[in-house]
Amino acid sequence: MGKNLAEKILSEHVGRDVVPGEIIVADVDLAFVQDGTGPLTVDQFNYLNFDDVKIKSFVFIDHASPSPRKELSNTQTKLRNFCKKTSANIYDIGEGISHQIVAEKHAKPGDIVVGADSHSCTAGALGAFATGMGSTDIALAYGLGKVWLKVPNSFKIILNGKLPFGVYAKDIILYLIGMIGADGATYKALEFAGDGVKNLSMESRLTISNMAVEAGAKVGLFPTDEITKEYLKSQGREKDFKELSPDEDAKYEKIIEIDVSKIEPQIAFPHTVDNTKNIKEAIGIKIDQVYIGTCTNGRIEDLRVVASILKGKRKAKDVRLIIAPASKDVYLQALKEGLINIFIETGATILPPGCGPCVGVHAGVPADGEKLLSTQNRNFHGRAGNPNSEIYLSSPAVAAATAITGYITDPREVLK
Amino acid sequence: MGKNLAEKILSEHVGRDVVPGEIIVADVDLAFVQDGTGPLTVDQFNYLNFDDVKIKSFVFIDHASPSPRKELSNTQTKLRNFCKKTSANIYDIGEGISHQIVAEKHAKPGDIVVGADSHSCTAGALGAFATGMGSTDIALAYGLGKVWLKVPNSFKIILNGKLPFGVYAKDIILYLIGMIGADGATYKALEFAGDGVKNLSMESRLTISNMAVEAGAKVGLFPTDEITKEYLKSQGREKDFKELSPDEDAKYEKIIEIDVSKIEPQIAFPHTVDNTKNIKEAIGIKIDQVYIGTCTNGRIEDLRVVASILKGKRKAKDVRLIIAPASKDVYLQALKEGLINIFIETGATILPPGCGPCVGVHAGVPADGEKLLSTQNRNFHGRAGNPNSEIYLSSPAVAAATAITGYITDPREVLK
Repeated sequence: MGKNLAEKILSEHVGRDVVPGEIIVADVDLAFVQDGTGPLTVDQFNYLNFDDVKIKSFVFIDHASPSPRKELSNTQTKLRNFCKKTSANIYDIGEGISHQIVAEKHAKPGDIVVGADSHSCTAGALGAFATGMGSTDIALAYGLGKVWLKVPNSFKIILNGKLPFGVYAKDIILYLIGMIGADGATYKALEFAGDGVKNLSMESRLTISNMAVEAGAKVGLFPTDEITKEYLKSQGREKDFKELSPDEDAKYEKIIEIDVSKIEPQIAFPHTVDNTKNIKEAIGIKIDQVYIGTCTNGRIEDLRVVASILKGKRKAKDVRLIIAPASKDVYLQALKEGLINIFIETGATILPPGCGPCVGVHAGVPADGEKLLSTQNRNFHGRAGNPNSEIYLSSPAVAAATAITGYITDPREVLK
Repeated sequence: MGKNLAEKILSEHVGRDVVPGEIIVADVDLAFVQDGTGPLTVDQFNYLNFDDVKIKSFVFIDHASPSPRKELSNTQTKLRNFCKKTSANIYDIGEGISHQIVAEKHAKPGDIVVGADSHSCTAGALGAFATGMGSTDIALAYGLGKVWLKVPNSFKIILNGKLPFGVYAKDIILYLIGMIGADGATYKALEFAGDGVKNLSMESRLTISNMAVEAGAKVGLFPTDEITKEYLKSQGREKDFKELSPDEDAKYEKIIEIDVSKIEPQIAFPHTVDNTKNIKEAIGIKIDQVYIGTCTNGRIEDLRVVASILKGKRKAKDVRLIIAPASKDVYLQALKEGLINIFIETGATILPPGCGPCVGVHAGVPADGEKLLSTQNRNFHGRAGNPNSEIYLSSPAVAAATAITGYITDPREVLK
């Protein structure tokens, strides 16, 4: 019987054909935690008396980075000591966000990747079965090299056509989540297909896979192709490439078709990601802080779009503009292309690679009554560190255009 | 009777000759607050029923910048609203540290400058009577354009000779404070003189004036000269230059001579600035975090020295290296010269212009038991945000050399 992508990857990892709904114990290729979830993983790892990690294991200090409080600093020490005691590798402050570094340097097509962070699904863009798990699951993955999983049913998301001018991957995924709802794909594998996929760069695919979990999905998978191969090659990882596509007769619980050429810029209104509207309904909303970055939209492709909008302009006086590259490599590339210079001249505040204000623990917590526009993936109530604030989500282009005017602005008005 | 620099400036501002010890009410040229001290200034300004600021007034969001907590964000809103309601100007997140921006753009030789921050004495390098005051004093300065002052007695600090290889202005001021003690010049005006002054760039002078308060001084004054003129010219402020030198028969309470050619790199050990020792006594102390920046040593001259040491090298694995330019202009210049690129390639974390971890409220708070080496001006117990940590102070060169080895290292070993 034909297999979809999730079934293919999971079957290969257990050495027999698996079917949706069954519980399996699968070998893991790569496991990681971040500084928020990692301390509990270390506790559980020690409680379970493991001596060393059994697989490729990472710890990322990306959330509170550099630390804003001594309590968090002490938990970071625990992580650093864990990496000295075991074979786990650390990416410390200034290196960047776990999901971006996993995509750049570690995840391979066909891998099973587990991370103690919701947005671990990001690496699905590379054709890895990448998913978020709890801290204890990762302690077990570290120590045993295995996880248990229920094989998910799959939704085939067929993307047709090409994105119009001023519309981006972020708009596709916001549109999809708005359509099916925040619980529209709970524990499903989203599998992207269609000729529209061929028009999406790897960075755009990473944006889409990153937000699969915002529809409740276990994973957001792309087949591999020339774009995957080229991306891996650009990272010096050509040998990591592997052909990966679903069988022609693969089964899906549901098939959803989207004509991406019809999508307009999307805004997710407070306080849920599926509260998405056409930008027309948001134009003119006064914004106090714009944040461009995160594991969703802090890549070089994003920063290039932002720079093309900001170049030679000044941000609005009453808006704070914060930009953070997703990784050190992105930062270095942006420096090389002169983008950081452009951003600073517009009046932006550049944070070091990391999560920045997305998680509300430092570096841009809003005041009461403030409205934020962010390229991040979540706008939950209180997410920014202040329950008396509101978060709107958008593409980097909308964010950049908004930084110039101080009001939610259609980037097509600025780019034209 | 001949006048020293403090007497000259203060006499001019009250329209008659003043003498040490008398209380005067003087016109102020420039007043400012930062986000830590400013909220109380605004409260007092409102309590006193002032309508508008009467003089050139600034608010700097440089301490918790961008804000790490909603409570601080709300006080920043208060400051932003104050600047909308009055003629005070704001330098918001990403612009840089008050003292650096005041030196670059606003303070003039002969001015009286008051700031609600201890290190407001920085602008003394430009020949301004610049001093720190409480929040309420600044509210009065804002509203009345005046402050009351006791005219200080002056110490003449004669600097002879030229700094040896690998030794910097920071070492001079640490050496002086170590010699006279943290209370060695309480409420005195330090007036720098001697041929050694001519060998000090404006940036070096700013470092020295910045730390005058660490010996208890009210102000740290330099006479003006060609270097002052050139600096102002480089800032497009040639017209702000004014000749300023003490009378030949000026009186001083004390005269201290220092042969700067004999000074060696200095380290202030925890937990007081005057606990300074020759670097020989510090070599080999294991350091967990190196911080290069602040109003003391975050200028382009400092970053150039740091880059010359770090270029082509990697920081030690176990040390975190944090660098923050003192202002946006410094950041842009460092970008232009390729310094930011060098820093990131060594493994540094670059923070946006601002105070960074110096004040212990965000962006690099240490864990229990950690030792920090910083180019900042203060190493008081708990200053870094964790009373269970220790801070050593040094020049940027020592800090850069230490970042490479992970242990306090003599920069002359690396530079040679």
